[in-house]
Amino acid sequence: MPLADTPEPPYWAVIFTTLRADAGAEDDYDGTARRMMELASRQPGFLGVEHARDAIGITVSYWANLEAIEAWRRNAEHLAAQRLGRELFYRAFRLRVARVERARAWSRNSSLFVS
Amino acid sequence: MPLADTPEPPYWAVIFTTLRADAGAEDDYDGTARRMMELASRQPGFLGVEHARDAIGITVSYWANLEAIEAWRRNAEHLAAQRLGRELFYRAFRLRVARVERARAWSRNSSLFVS
Repeated sequence: MPLADTPEPPYWAVIFTTLRADAGAEDDYDGTARRMMELASRQPGFLGVEHARDAIGITVSYWANLEAIEAWRRNAEHLAAQRLGRELFYRAFRLRVARVERARAWSRNSSLFVS
Repeated sequence: MPLADTPEPPYWAVIFTTLRADAGAEDDYDGTARRMMELASRQPGFLGVEHARDAIGITVSYWANLEAIEAWRRNAEHLAAQRLGRELFYRAFRLRVARVERARAWSRNSSLFVS
């Protein structure tokens, strides 16, 4: 999964950081995570997502405004996945909603700084 | 590395997402990354950091205010590491500075939602 090409700020970020539960449920987790990515990306106001996981998982999703975040939070299928997260997948998590004020993009080929 | 136990919002997040360059420099990278984590954690206003890496790297550091972020950005040893990042370690990156407005912490043992 690449880096997210978000527009000029301001926009919003949801920073979701997780510790996985010890027990299995790997298949369920991978399927649910994939499905949530797919579903989120079709929500109004969705701007992009970045994800990485080793000792902890970090998923940062980007949104046009707070209303879009709130609508996604209340999506029925997402609510079911949130319940699975608490019951099966995670030992602990942090969820932070933040307003992106400044952003910069750099890539080697272009040596271009944006914004 | 655990999840960051940050205080009640508002505070600030620096979301740094990276694509690594293909070429080696693994040892240099690991040493520099470790040193930067250690150095950042001793800066005034530092609140915590979360990091994960697989296909992409994500490092989210948390700060009390913008002044603390600016001071860290200009730290001499950090400036040298930023140069190494552009010259050696990264193919592309995104750097986003965001104000955390809401935060929630959950853990299985306590089933406690904070804030």
